[in-house]
Amino acid sequence: MIAADSRHLRSVLAKNIRIRRTSLGISQEALADLAGLHRTYVGAVERAERNISIDNISKLAGALRTTAAELLSGGSE
Amino acid sequence: MIAADSRHLRSVLAKNIRIRRTSLGISQEALADLAGLHRTYVGAVERAERNISIDNISKLAGALRTTAAELLSGGSE
Repeated sequence: MIAADSRHLRSVLAKNIRIRRTSLGISQEALADLAGLHRTYVGAVERAERNISIDNISKLAGALRTTAAELLSGGSE
Repeated sequence: MIAADSRHLRSVLAKNIRIRRTSLGISQEALADLAGLHRTYVGAVERAERNISIDNISKLAGALRTTAAELLSGGSE
């Protein structure tokens, strides 16, 4: 059971990762390699399916050359 | 082993939670109750010891009446 606020925040992150990744012209696999994460894990994060940790958010932000705060911004967040 | 970027982001979050919590005049225990988390867990997050998940960041942001993006902002993040 996921609370509505949490579901919303996962979706904000998922959307921002996808936007940033595609603007950089890289695949989920390339992003996963850059971040040191598994390709299927990155795919699941982009579908808002995973309860990602702050350490992995930091890895993805670094790989996408942005900040965690930016990746969690937008919507009503 | 925690990467330097991740350690930094945990510290940013820890500091922002503490600042926001004290500005609201509430204890760690009261914050934990509001967020539906355990008091010792909130204490560990404020000491940057825990690899907190996005769902729990969302719960703390809601309890602190702020956003996840705000809680992760500052420093070089």
